[in-house]
Amino acid sequence: MISFESANVGACLSPRQVLLGDGAAAQVSEVLGNWQVTDGRVLIVADKEVARLGLIEKVRDPLKANFDVACFDEIVGEPTLATAESLANFARQKPYSAVVGVGGGSALDMSKLAAALAVNTGKVTDYLGMTRFKETPLPLVAVPTTAGTGSEATAISMLSIEGKKAIVLSPQLVPLSAVLDPLLTVTLPPKVTAATGLDALSHALEAFMSIKANPYTDTQAIATISVIARWLKTAVEDGANLEARRAMIYAAYTGGLCLNAGVVLGHSVAYTISNRAHMPHGVSCAMALPYTIAFNLPAVSDRLSIAAAHVLGRSDVTGEDLALWVGDLITALGMPRSLQDIGLKESDLDAMAEECLNKYPRPTNPTPITRERLQVFYKKMYNGDVQGCIEAFRSL
Amino acid sequence: MISFESANVGACLSPRQVLLGDGAAAQVSEVLGNWQVTDGRVLIVADKEVARLGLIEKVRDPLKANFDVACFDEIVGEPTLATAESLANFARQKPYSAVVGVGGGSALDMSKLAAALAVNTGKVTDYLGMTRFKETPLPLVAVPTTAGTGSEATAISMLSIEGKKAIVLSPQLVPLSAVLDPLLTVTLPPKVTAATGLDALSHALEAFMSIKANPYTDTQAIATISVIARWLKTAVEDGANLEARRAMIYAAYTGGLCLNAGVVLGHSVAYTISNRAHMPHGVSCAMALPYTIAFNLPAVSDRLSIAAAHVLGRSDVTGEDLALWVGDLITALGMPRSLQDIGLKESDLDAMAEECLNKYPRPTNPTPITRERLQVFYKKMYNGDVQGCIEAFRSL
Repeated sequence: MISFESANVGACLSPRQVLLGDGAAAQVSEVLGNWQVTDGRVLIVADKEVARLGLIEKVRDPLKANFDVACFDEIVGEPTLATAESLANFARQKPYSAVVGVGGGSALDMSKLAAALAVNTGKVTDYLGMTRFKETPLPLVAVPTTAGTGSEATAISMLSIEGKKAIVLSPQLVPLSAVLDPLLTVTLPPKVTAATGLDALSHALEAFMSIKANPYTDTQAIATISVIARWLKTAVEDGANLEARRAMIYAAYTGGLCLNAGVVLGHSVAYTISNRAHMPHGVSCAMALPYTIAFNLPAVSDRLSIAAAHVLGRSDVTGEDLALWVGDLITALGMPRSLQDIGLKESDLDAMAEECLNKYPRPTNPTPITRERLQVFYKKMYNGDVQGCIEAFRSL
Repeated sequence: MISFESANVGACLSPRQVLLGDGAAAQVSEVLGNWQVTDGRVLIVADKEVARLGLIEKVRDPLKANFDVACFDEIVGEPTLATAESLANFARQKPYSAVVGVGGGSALDMSKLAAALAVNTGKVTDYLGMTRFKETPLPLVAVPTTAGTGSEATAISMLSIEGKKAIVLSPQLVPLSAVLDPLLTVTLPPKVTAATGLDALSHALEAFMSIKANPYTDTQAIATISVIARWLKTAVEDGANLEARRAMIYAAYTGGLCLNAGVVLGHSVAYTISNRAHMPHGVSCAMALPYTIAFNLPAVSDRLSIAAAHVLGRSDVTGEDLALWVGDLITALGMPRSLQDIGLKESDLDAMAEECLNKYPRPTNPTPITRERLQVFYKKMYNGDVQGCIEAFRSL
């Protein structure tokens, strides 16, 4: 049950329209027409890999009936400042009526920048952090081809500047419309399906623990975790299963809406992992998740029992069961479960704890993050010992 | 559990932003600032009753720091074409930067028209039905003071033309932001709390039965009915209970989002009732609801079992239990339960069935609506016999 105990004012953003269904990608013209964008030039910003797979055509060909279509399909994972700048130049060369992002989180994040920078002067770096664009960005339709990041639902655009994550954040970046076409995701390989699905799970569970959680994000989180618990394994094992693909692309979207509450400790830990061992963002987040649940159990045990009930379909369960379930899910999906598994050394742990504490503070976490607690966290994670982590934090 | 069996493409609209929390009404300036509306003149469109209660000040006074504020506070229940026309004239006299609706469903519906007509020429009647405005309506913030209609979440504006309901419907009418301040609802009398809360319950349950239901509307419907089942009675019995007020204003919003799936037979029947006996819309809808569930039970029994489980908090329940629960809730809230109770005569029933069939067709209803079935429906409703209605439709 959603809680209404808090008097806090929470502000949640979302697209104005979501379109969900098999073949929805063909309806981008109609979506734009709803907002009076009926002619002119449309800029598609797409993933290089998505272009290679021929998925862009599903969006582009129907658009050609009403629009001149230009395509910037050079986006790869973790886009750099150079990519963002060349995209901005491209978007400024001609007047566009709208931007359509097609791809995973990186392509969608870049499409947000394109929509904003096409009509605003200045450099990409002028807009880092929480920002307000002088001119309203162009209408933006986000068409995800993975089911995970939830970028189609958020105000966030991430890029990599000199190897470090940088962020552009503005309510104006939230796409006008998210078009969720499960048919675009049926060719996703099992590993990508698993990693991106775990990313969405992390969004939902971390947001559910956040001190900024509110009834709107709780509604999304409960939907997200229920759906992922039921469908993620099926989507990984049987990629052609359309019911599972529909479920996962929807859960990724609602997982993105959860980000209105922010994430917690798990994401900070994930950054300290990926700074040392290259792996998909969703995997590092998922690895940290059971320990994050253990860390926060004493503070939000009621909420975690609710989450557990939605995941496990029974009411006689607790946050401990939830932590163990996440750990088992990671194993079942063939993902590494401990820091040892990915080749980190025990001697790395202190530096990781220190980095987590200083570089990635997380004021949304319901339990204060101290050096002592982080040392326990990393030690247990090094050994893959979720149960031990639960017990340790019971008395800390 | 949300179903992903359908391949249909469903399009769902919502505000770009929702703000929920005690005192949120004071933050309309900040909300507008998020969308670059930072100065100029703001038009408040408000309920006459809300003005009398002094609730407008909660919105207007903080706005005055950044804007010139004009106020049109002449909206009463079931606004007429004359009201809409005089509002349109008012909105066109000066240039406005934004419109803010404050009140129940009628005031919010009229604020949508004001935002659109302020910048579009022509008569109100030029825009009846599904419409597209040439000029993008002004930014609109909807601040509900009742918890029921969900107008703050929808694309719909209703008005009364020569005693008949008319509708203006456009994606462009969906408010930019819904500001849900439970403090504005604490003075709502118990009867209004009950009637508006039942309206929200009808939205959720009817949408959940609709053939246009989709994962997005199912998520909203499950949240809405769970919250109303837990909190409506408390809000009616103890109006000062802030937890209950927070819950109900949130459920009304999610109930509005459910309308993306449309409503079903119950709303048609409700119109045939209110054409004969004057009563709040939420009450006539709620009266029809148990019989609508009975009517649709054979077609959507699985879905109704899911709804029952969320309402009753147990998994061993069915749509029959749900129908009986709704009937009992209406009685518990002191509402009339049968057509007899409200003074209709048995001799009215055939005409009502005929009117329902011809004037209010409902293609979204999962069971075909026939004359024979409607006659059974009205007969059982006349006698207040929910159980008998369930049994009758089992074999029809």
